[in-house]
Amino acid sequence: MQRRSFLKQAATGSAVAGALAAPAIVGAQPTIRWRLASSYPKSLDTLYGASETLSKLVSAGTGGKFQISVHAAGELVPALQVLDAVQQGTVDCGSTLGSFYFGKDPTFAFDTTLPFGLNTRQMLAWMHDGGGMALMREMYAEHGVVNFPMANTGAQMGGWFRKEINSLEDLKGLKMRIAGVAGTIMGKYGLVAQQLGAGDLYPSLERGTIDAAEFAGPYDDERLGLYKVAKNYYYPGWWEGCAQVSLLVNQKAYDALPAEYKSVLEAASAYAMTECIAKYDARNPAALRRLVGGGAVLKAFPRPVLDACWTASQEWYAETAGKNAKFKKVYDAWSRFRTDSVTWFRVTENTFDDYLAAQLATRR
Amino acid sequence: MQRRSFLKQAATGSAVAGALAAPAIVGAQPTIRWRLASSYPKSLDTLYGASETLSKLVSAGTGGKFQISVHAAGELVPALQVLDAVQQGTVDCGSTLGSFYFGKDPTFAFDTTLPFGLNTRQMLAWMHDGGGMALMREMYAEHGVVNFPMANTGAQMGGWFRKEINSLEDLKGLKMRIAGVAGTIMGKYGLVAQQLGAGDLYPSLERGTIDAAEFAGPYDDERLGLYKVAKNYYYPGWWEGCAQVSLLVNQKAYDALPAEYKSVLEAASAYAMTECIAKYDARNPAALRRLVGGGAVLKAFPRPVLDACWTASQEWYAETAGKNAKFKKVYDAWSRFRTDSVTWFRVTENTFDDYLAAQLATRR
Repeated sequence: MQRRSFLKQAATGSAVAGALAAPAIVGAQPTIRWRLASSYPKSLDTLYGASETLSKLVSAGTGGKFQISVHAAGELVPALQVLDAVQQGTVDCGSTLGSFYFGKDPTFAFDTTLPFGLNTRQMLAWMHDGGGMALMREMYAEHGVVNFPMANTGAQMGGWFRKEINSLEDLKGLKMRIAGVAGTIMGKYGLVAQQLGAGDLYPSLERGTIDAAEFAGPYDDERLGLYKVAKNYYYPGWWEGCAQVSLLVNQKAYDALPAEYKSVLEAASAYAMTECIAKYDARNPAALRRLVGGGAVLKAFPRPVLDACWTASQEWYAETAGKNAKFKKVYDAWSRFRTDSVTWFRVTENTFDDYLAAQLATRR
Repeated sequence: MQRRSFLKQAATGSAVAGALAAPAIVGAQPTIRWRLASSYPKSLDTLYGASETLSKLVSAGTGGKFQISVHAAGELVPALQVLDAVQQGTVDCGSTLGSFYFGKDPTFAFDTTLPFGLNTRQMLAWMHDGGGMALMREMYAEHGVVNFPMANTGAQMGGWFRKEINSLEDLKGLKMRIAGVAGTIMGKYGLVAQQLGAGDLYPSLERGTIDAAEFAGPYDDERLGLYKVAKNYYYPGWWEGCAQVSLLVNQKAYDALPAEYKSVLEAASAYAMTECIAKYDARNPAALRRLVGGGAVLKAFPRPVLDACWTASQEWYAETAGKNAKFKKVYDAWSRFRTDSVTWFRVTENTFDDYLAAQLATRR
């Protein structure tokens, strides 16, 4: 009998004795084991930690029946090949940045962030209630993948510079470790973008192979020790007003999940997201204080430099939308949402923040 | 056929007969039905909606075995008596604002917000990674209750005023519907605070019984139609830089839950929180546009008025901490967190927001 034999199979293993004594019940569920490939090393308890939180919650919510083992970058799959591995079913799921797959299609970057883009809350609003999720699901579905937002860094810093950036001229010939579109944009002003792994930043800056490097924010940056070799710490990271990390799940693996597990997985990804943002927001302040105590010098990018980067970004958006219909479709929706959202935030949200910042600065 | 009959019965809502027929299995979990008393009416699809989302996710994550029925304010319990009802076990859980129970102890307000307090992300950071959860759990435990953050409005507006507020003088004798501490604080400058239900705001303003009223933000405020009778719409709502809603659960009911259900409930509350903030952030922009189109006039509180309210707030904090040790303990931790957090946010997060706001305003 089908139902009975299925249940019997599900029961093989652990709690058999308990099951014999327990009253009959509904909802027997299969044991499922997934492997998750993270794009991050274990040392990043923020971004890598989000996958561990997800795994714990999924297990706890299913009585240990749905297990996700978390694997650091390089353990099963190189950091920048997580999408491919999930698509091919090498792993069941992965935790990664859409923008890493920019080379396949720049549209992937909308799942992470783009220059002068949405901030963290605006990104969550776009995804959950502004039409962003449908657009991102459509995009990933073409690659046999289902996405769930699962972490975010908040607004990033602009990185570490050996010399001051006082004008646009200072970007000319500057060798900077910077990922993605921002390198292309500053390339218009002569910056030479370099791709380097996190571990190579310190020695490259020390040797002078590069002049500047950006990574994330104080809490993550502190571990790289860059303030010792490039003390000027610039803000804002206009190319990463936030950076959303997604859980990517192989479509077939996802479809095979019972409805309960799908629901537990989705809620767990929201919890992991909340916890990750909270960690950054709660830990960055002390990290920044330690960095400044260690010699880091906080500096704002000069307004003319920001303005030039804004202009170059607008050109890049127009060029890219002009030659990629998929990008254009998402860009049009996203930029409308951005304008509406930023216009609203500047009324009460930013006014509240700015007033409080001014008051507390006075009191110190 | 068993499988078929189970499905049939489960679909009618009574899984009992199906349960009798089903074979014993692993992970058997009890059927649990809870009642949730909300402090909100069904018309608020944001705040009331968060409880519906919670209920749906808890059911979906447990295969329908853990059901939470959601009841609007007044249906089982009056809006402002949810804590008492949960404590006494009249209901298993409730969705409410800690600040409603300010009269029992002002310390409850830290679970919601206080004047010039944390913004939405800072509140989440404090709760999840800054020690706030432990302090709030300790406070609620004294009332036999376990709390889970489950919704937030974001920074609120300052409300609707029939006449302009051009100086502190204009607060003298002003009859305003305003809840909690802010009324006390502006009372120092002669404002007369009134407590009124949402439905009474429009007629009271129209008749001139009150001169001003605050509720939340554009999306919620729009439904009350206040712009028709008090067109000056002020910002920022300095007394509510965010407003966190909590799920309060009767301790005994919580302790009786299987570990799986506890985990599903906690993850569901995080999901409900994310969705609620996203709804406000995605829907407020269009609502504000409609309000302005309907005659609302946006105005910022004058700086001297904000400064006077800041000063009076500081006095109130000092007075309250001076006579309430519990309040002082939380206040000390909370205000340290606030200073650290605001100091960090003003570096890259606010700079990013303000730059984008300036650029997009120029482009319009």
